[in-house]
Amino acid sequence: MPTRAQEPAYRRLEVDERRRQLLAAGQKLFTEHAYSELSMADIAREAGISKALLYHYFPSKRDFFEATLASAAAEVAQLTQPDPSLPPLEQIRAILDHYLAWIEAHAQAYTKLLQSATSHPEVSALIQQVRDTTAQRILDALIGPHPTATQRAATRAWLWYIDGALTDWLQHHDYTRTQLRELLIHTLQASATAG
Amino acid sequence: MPTRAQEPAYRRLEVDERRRQLLAAGQKLFTEHAYSELSMADIAREAGISKALLYHYFPSKRDFFEATLASAAAEVAQLTQPDPSLPPLEQIRAILDHYLAWIEAHAQAYTKLLQSATSHPEVSALIQQVRDTTAQRILDALIGPHPTATQRAATRAWLWYIDGALTDWLQHHDYTRTQLRELLIHTLQASATAG
Repeated sequence: MPTRAQEPAYRRLEVDERRRQLLAAGQKLFTEHAYSELSMADIAREAGISKALLYHYFPSKRDFFEATLASAAAEVAQLTQPDPSLPPLEQIRAILDHYLAWIEAHAQAYTKLLQSATSHPEVSALIQQVRDTTAQRILDALIGPHPTATQRAATRAWLWYIDGALTDWLQHHDYTRTQLRELLIHTLQASATAG
Repeated sequence: MPTRAQEPAYRRLEVDERRRQLLAAGQKLFTEHAYSELSMADIAREAGISKALLYHYFPSKRDFFEATLASAAAEVAQLTQPDPSLPPLEQIRAILDHYLAWIEAHAQAYTKLLQSATSHPEVSALIQQVRDTTAQRILDALIGPHPTATQRAATRAWLWYIDGALTDWLQHHDYTRTQLRELLIHTLQASATAG
């Protein structure tokens, strides 16, 4: 039987775990249905909990949607942590490997995300934020703390390039993930060393 | 005094000219104000015509907005016509020169356009359509009628790269238009010849 001191930690774990499950359900639901089609009642039903409990965790559908996005972004950020023991270009190759594998596993969600950016400003803001963080990591790894203006521009622009290449890849699927990765690496190298 | 045969052509010219003026006014208005802030009454007042006459040309604000976008896109398409007498890379350099000059002259409109893409699906569709047309022109000029899958991907992705680079340039303005153009050319060459 847990002591009083243990109880809150135990309950906290349950709360976190429930929240994690709801966010996983959210990733699935928002991938399969348009935002406007889903109600909090639908979400609660799909997640197998009461609507009241869902509202306890997330005060509105928008809050739930944003938390779902944030948790997916955190997942990606975790996967794309640079490994400082590798040489710079190998760090970037490893990051891309993890990132492209994640995209391939979540192709439908990723495509939907880029599409939703057209109707949800918070999605655009999230994409911009992921790009900024990633650009900074890449600049740090590849160039160091003092990039030139065009190196900064090249790195930022390359992150847009990735989304363009991914859009093409997911649409056609007529080249391998390794070919895609090498195209991205080659372009980054050429571009960031142009200035 | 015009003959009956001349009358329709004469009136038609007036109609086209009026439409052109309205679309020019639209480009200015939609640059300076959010779409949701503008009413057809505001637009008519700014254009110095009656609301009834405005509705005669454009049945709704959305129609007017879309026609404004389409006319800007046509302007850009006209400016970026390739000159087949030049070698391929010089064609692309010339296209970029005209395009970047247009963006610089319409910086506010362009920034607003990229932002509006987040709330207006028709804006995203237009951007996608301009990218597709341009990608095709560049593939034709640089590679010919049979690009590999990765060359196609590289060219499409590079158009996204341009928007990323432009976003950086318009924000910081700490490198010249020529530096930007050369960064774009260098990246395209490296990228499209990688596969």
